Amino acid sequence: MPESPWSLHPQIDADTVAVGDLALSRLLLANDANYPWTILVPRLPGLTEIIDLDAAAQMQLLGEIGSVSRALKAITACDKLNVAALGNVVAQLHVHVIARRHSDAAWPKPVWGAVPAATYDPAVRDRLIGALRRELNIGA
Amino acid sequence: MPESPWSLHPQIDADTVAVGDLALSRLLLANDANYPWTILVPRLPGLTEIIDLDAAAQMQLLGEIGSVSRALKAITACDKLNVAALGNVVAQLHVHVIARRHSDAAWPKPVWGAVPAATYDPAVRDRLIGALRRELNIGA
Repeated sequence: MPESPWSLHPQIDADTVAVGDLALSRLLLANDANYPWTILVPRLPGLTEIIDLDAAAQMQLLGEIGSVSRALKAITACDKLNVAALGNVVAQLHVHVIARRHSDAAWPKPVWGAVPAATYDPAVRDRLIGALRRELNIGA
Repeated sequence: MPESPWSLHPQIDADTVAVGDLALSRLLLANDANYPWTILVPRLPGLTEIIDLDAAAQMQLLGEIGSVSRALKAITACDKLNVAALGNVVAQLHVHVIARRHSDAAWPKPVWGAVPAATYDPAVRDRLIGALRRELNIGA
């Protein structure tokens, strides 16, 4: 059975804005100003679990999680990173990399469902996206 | 400053039972019968983030996450895996690998804080630990 080409799940698409593409994954920023909340989505079809990737792609994903983690630490001076592949609501494999602060709206709870999403000031969001692109050397 | 030797954080110790040691990580089972919920804790001192590990250790951890993921899938026939390094409450680096079912107590929410922990029937818990040890070729 031929595989269909990759496309971003419409629910993830609706909840995020694109930052840019890394070698394997599309990097997205969640539409929630409560936290600097990024999502990596490997651009390969038919994935739901990390172990659905072959070993080389898993290592690439790990490297991209690390790059985004370091970028978020550098940009936000966060207190903690949260890294998670859950996928209970949207099964398409995606990895959350979230910069947490002791003062954020949900701390110390996980972010999912904790408080309603906050609307970004567009200028704040654009600065964060710009900073991520610079740290990660990715184009628009 | 000399590093102190690794030891398991007392809160994690209190909330789990030991399954055994993989090459890098101690594998634990959470004291919550709602879900087959394992936790990997790399046995190195001073870690709070995945990116605190060097590249080789990160790859080792990724391999152990994969091994435990496959073991849980084989044992539990779960619908979804949840893999997460949060550490907001206990900062010591630990990675949750949780077998989720559409029928479980929290689905589709994340497990943390969703419902009170359920007490294991000791026989059920021992069977799960035994199955994990066999799948992962680790001793008691």
